[in-house]
Amino acid sequence: METNQIFPQGQQLPNEWFTGNAFLTPLVAKDKNNQFSVGCVTFLPNARTVWHTHPKGQVLIVIEGNGFYQEKGKLAQPITKGDVVNIPENTEHWHGATATHKMVHIAITNYEEDVQVTWLQPVLNEDYQKVNEK
Amino acid sequence: METNQIFPQGQQLPNEWFTGNAFLTPLVAKDKNNQFSVGCVTFLPNARTVWHTHPKGQVLIVIEGNGFYQEKGKLAQPITKGDVVNIPENTEHWHGATATHKMVHIAITNYEEDVQVTWLQPVLNEDYQKVNEK
Repeated sequence: METNQIFPQGQQLPNEWFTGNAFLTPLVAKDKNNQFSVGCVTFLPNARTVWHTHPKGQVLIVIEGNGFYQEKGKLAQPITKGDVVNIPENTEHWHGATATHKMVHIAITNYEEDVQVTWLQPVLNEDYQKVNEK
Repeated sequence: METNQIFPQGQQLPNEWFTGNAFLTPLVAKDKNNQFSVGCVTFLPNARTVWHTHPKGQVLIVIEGNGFYQEKGKLAQPITKGDVVNIPENTEHWHGATATHKMVHIAITNYEEDVQVTWLQPVLNEDYQKVNEK
């Protein structure tokens, strides 16, 4: 573990939902008080989620590195250490590392009953490359 | 700002609720999806909350330094970078730095309607010193 790293890298996330090498350390599970889960997600360079939606939104808190957050039909936003993204409900989006840097974020993901996320199609390599070329 | 620091130190917190020098950077406010607020709290050495309770609990995620978490009638627990505390509802407790190190945590604080916290009496200097001497 690097000296500056706060959490262990955790377990690799499935390639069905994450393109490239992404990892999760779970921090808090949903319970009677917390209607959300919390985890730390590490995206190695080139790794990103597939497009997806959250029925009650999600908060991302970037704690290391450089990445992108993009909502469908909008420009990708660069995100870096200290940035917070409050993702609206039912809004198609993806997030991940840049092609050259890792990105680590804490994710607070709300539940609507037992559902947190609906996974959709991958971010195409050509679209991801265009975002990185800008 | 130090290179390793993720968030700015923020605004000083009131001495009515925080003994010593504690600071807050708000990260997320309660909204229709998030029934909580999120903030980053920095406790300089010797700083701590007064005793208090949360009606729907609170999650602490320690991102830097060394501190303590203590529930009334139990021993104080040392907490450090990477530790997570899931504080139960209506449970009297305090948290803060050690006497010699700063401590920084993210706090996710649930709301019960419009209430997040009930502040009580200060942690006495003699009790805080005893915790630090162990």
